[in-house]
Amino acid sequence: MSDIALGLEALARLLSADLMRVENPDSLVMGVAPLESAGPNHLSLARDLRQVKALRKTRALAVLISNPRLIEKSPCSVLQVEDLSKALSLAIAYFHPEPELAEGVMPGALVDEGVRMGLGCRVEPGARIEAGASMGDHCHVGANAVILACCKLGSRVRVGPGSVLGTPGFGLRREGERPVRIPQVGMVVIEDEVELGARCTVDRATLGATRIGAGSKLDAAVHVGHNVDIGRNVIIAAQSGLSGSVKIGDGAVLGGQVGVADHVVIGAGAQIGAGSGVGSRVAPGARVAGYPALPVERWLARSFFRSQKHPSAERDEEPRS
Amino acid sequence: MSDIALGLEALARLLSADLMRVENPDSLVMGVAPLESAGPNHLSLARDLRQVKALRKTRALAVLISNPRLIEKSPCSVLQVEDLSKALSLAIAYFHPEPELAEGVMPGALVDEGVRMGLGCRVEPGARIEAGASMGDHCHVGANAVILACCKLGSRVRVGPGSVLGTPGFGLRREGERPVRIPQVGMVVIEDEVELGARCTVDRATLGATRIGAGSKLDAAVHVGHNVDIGRNVIIAAQSGLSGSVKIGDGAVLGGQVGVADHVVIGAGAQIGAGSGVGSRVAPGARVAGYPALPVERWLARSFFRSQKHPSAERDEEPRS
Amino acid sequence: MSDIALGLEALARLLSADLMRVENPDSLVMGVAPLESAGPNHLSLARDLRQVKALRKTRALAVLISNPRLIEKSPCSVLQVEDLSKALSLAIAYFHPEPELAEGVMPGALVDEGVRMGLGCRVEPGARIEAGASMGDHCHVGANAVILACCKLGSRVRVGPGSVLGTPGFGLRREGERPVRIPQVGMVVIEDEVELGARCTVDRATLGATRIGAGSKLDAAVHVGHNVDIGRNVIIAAQSGLSGSVKIGDGAVLGGQVGVADHVVIGAGAQIGAGSGVGSRVAPGARVAGYPALPVERWLARSFFRSQKHPSAERDEEPRS
Repeated sequence: MSDIALGLEALARLLSADLMRVENPDSLVMGVAPLESAGPNHLSLARDLRQVKALRKTRALAVLISNPRLIEKSPCSVLQVEDLSKALSLAIAYFHPEPELAEGVMPGALVDEGVRMGLGCRVEPGARIEAGASMGDHCHVGANAVILACCKLGSRVRVGPGSVLGTPGFGLRREGERPVRIPQVGMVVIEDEVELGARCTVDRATLGATRIGAGSKLDAAVHVGHNVDIGRNVIIAAQSGLSGSVKIGDGAVLGGQVGVADHVVIGAGAQIGAGSGVGSRVAPGARVAGYPALPVERWLARSFFRSQKHPSAERDEEPRS
Repeated sequence: MSDIALGLEALARLLSADLMRVENPDSLVMGVAPLESAGPNHLSLARDLRQVKALRKTRALAVLISNPRLIEKSPCSVLQVEDLSKALSLAIAYFHPEPELAEGVMPGALVDEGVRMGLGCRVEPGARIEAGASMGDHCHVGANAVILACCKLGSRVRVGPGSVLGTPGFGLRREGERPVRIPQVGMVVIEDEVELGARCTVDRATLGATRIGAGSKLDAAVHVGHNVDIGRNVIIAAQSGLSGSVKIGDGAVLGGQVGVADHVVIGAGAQIGAGSGVGSRVAPGARVAGYPALPVERWLARSFFRSQKHPSAERDEEPRS
Repeated sequence: MSDIALGLEALARLLSADLMRVENPDSLVMGVAPLESAGPNHLSLARDLRQVKALRKTRALAVLISNPRLIEKSPCSVLQVEDLSKALSLAIAYFHPEPELAEGVMPGALVDEGVRMGLGCRVEPGARIEAGASMGDHCHVGANAVILACCKLGSRVRVGPGSVLGTPGFGLRREGERPVRIPQVGMVVIEDEVELGARCTVDRATLGATRIGAGSKLDAAVHVGHNVDIGRNVIIAAQSGLSGSVKIGDGAVLGGQVGVADHVVIGAGAQIGAGSGVGSRVAPGARVAGYPALPVERWLARSFFRSQKHPSAERDEEPRS
């Protein structure tokens, strides 16, 4: 519960919602909570009909919904919106604002003198940034993250705790039976507003640069190999791995635990189902799943006789909480 | 070899074993070692008939067995027990006791002032714990682990080196083409006696809590998404990943590299084979394997004509060493 | 661009190359760059006919090739070699030599007094090495890596940033419903010239040792379970995982995201395709792929009617950059 309070009508204005039902007109909303744990001053959220049971039992003061069939199932006040995720985001940001964090290099972080850092950056304890690296304004580097000398970060980049950027790519040749490293002297370029989750790894290029395009978001434990080129606004879920020289077009979405073989090209806007193994080109806008990855329709057909549902190619972008 | 020594009869009493054969009645056991490297003062272990060859050649003073057919194959003294893993544990703990570790916050760890910590906790070098986090008694936080403000740990919890707890969940919405984060303001609740291996990640909930129930054990590099609810005494092997809002019942066992799609419910006592991709509900007690996951019997049938054995759904809980 | 310059004939001698065509005999090579970004003082590289388009447009002074059909496609001078990867390595090492790093324990690293360390080792900031561990000469331990007491490293070993060596293996038994750890008191042995990428985990053995043989190279985020035995000169790509007591023969190659079930034996020189799930013995020299893993020929046959190419069992050992 926060110490911020708002009446239902003011809340409806804040969220651009229609107040479809009012049960307790004088009560104040003071926080956001899941249906199951909400109390009499909470706003809650019901996403679809599978949540009717929880909705009927909720003690919340009001619920956010999008589907009109949920209005009559609600035991409390109802705010209807078109974009549920956006309204939820606004409500959380209003009632549970994130604390302002001080700028600067926190105690226990080790940033070399030669690092160029823009305005308003924050480097958490235990993070290590080598001379030669650079970053723009308002970046956030998580605790115990490692950014090596060959990395150039844009502005408003977030690097999750424990992530490692700039290690040499895994390029090997054999000398007799011995595997020997090919020197890796390229860069890592992370553009504006990229966010990397916890424990990601991004390898530097052999020559040239490994690049992650502006606005792309990577979940935890994603591995990006050397010379990979990720476009803008790409979404990659947890534990996925991109082999050397993979190219991913703007706006593509990769589910969790996806693997992409080296040099494969994935077109703009393509959607790759969770757990897929992608060994060949994926056309722009295509939806594929499976190992090896198939068009979703064919993969579903194969899966049907096994009476299993498919992992959705598109990540459900928000929890029902 | 330890500096602790025990005669065979005393050892049999310690392990509740039956001394089925005595070859060198006056020798002393001074340590535990694998069949291959054991010397004349070692206790060793033979688990099944596949180890007969190594058993015949061992130089150990005595072997622990459960299967009576191994008695006559042994060249040395034999102690028979019902529960081999338990007897092995007792023997290792007796001859190779783990060193007592000093309590407290080790040099190089950074624990904020506002952290509530119970009695007898140990925080290894380089670990980072933010103000707002709390933990019960006798917790152990590994080197370079990161515990953010939203985390509540119970007692006797172990967090492996390099693990990261409390990062924001990967909840996104699109604003035009740009993916935008939905604020994540929930908690992480880790109950008593949970153990997380090295390099795990546990995301905080959007609202409410991501929970790991009492007694559950996670291997290395497991990813737990936002709003996941793991029951009690669950076992999850290395590199598995749980998407947002997954629910796992008490006592379930997940093999390594398992992936579970968001909102999927896995029933109590279910067993999920290594490498499985689980996209839909798994009934309590069911055994499934494959991608997409199938009941083990059907998955085996499909795999049979490919003449391959199946990865066992249940992790072999102890090495033959 | 480096400040080192070399004429084409001297460069040909350095790389043991044949100068097959000379366009600008008086220009100097001053660096190595990909075809697309090379300038008039760069050496570049064309690996195969798929790169003809980029080759025709390059502004490089000269290109390294192996395939003679590329000679006439080149707009610039051509150096032909037999082993392209070796020549590339020599050229990069000459024009872009890696900076000499100071020896010693860097600020912010925490190395206990009891650690035995050979000559010329370097321990990066934030790394943690416990008393009891040892390492030979010229080892390199990355930032925020963790090496626990039970680890013995040979000479010229590289441990990537954030890697964790020596955590207890995931050996459990049940006591009623509760999973209980079997004590893990064995070692980790890393032989000479092994290289581990970023964020790897290597568990200590229950008894005996988890071993990685001389010259083996592991990519990022690889997990090595307790009592695993990896031979010499083995290559393992990113995010692969080896369960307890797996045995891998000399010179084997595992693609990315491979999983191997416990106690499985993989023969010398075997090749395991990316994303494979290996549940049973793989013969020496065999090539397998898929989940469960099949001989590559059969896996391809199954995959053919799905009109998908296969992830190559052998990692492309160098980027086309």
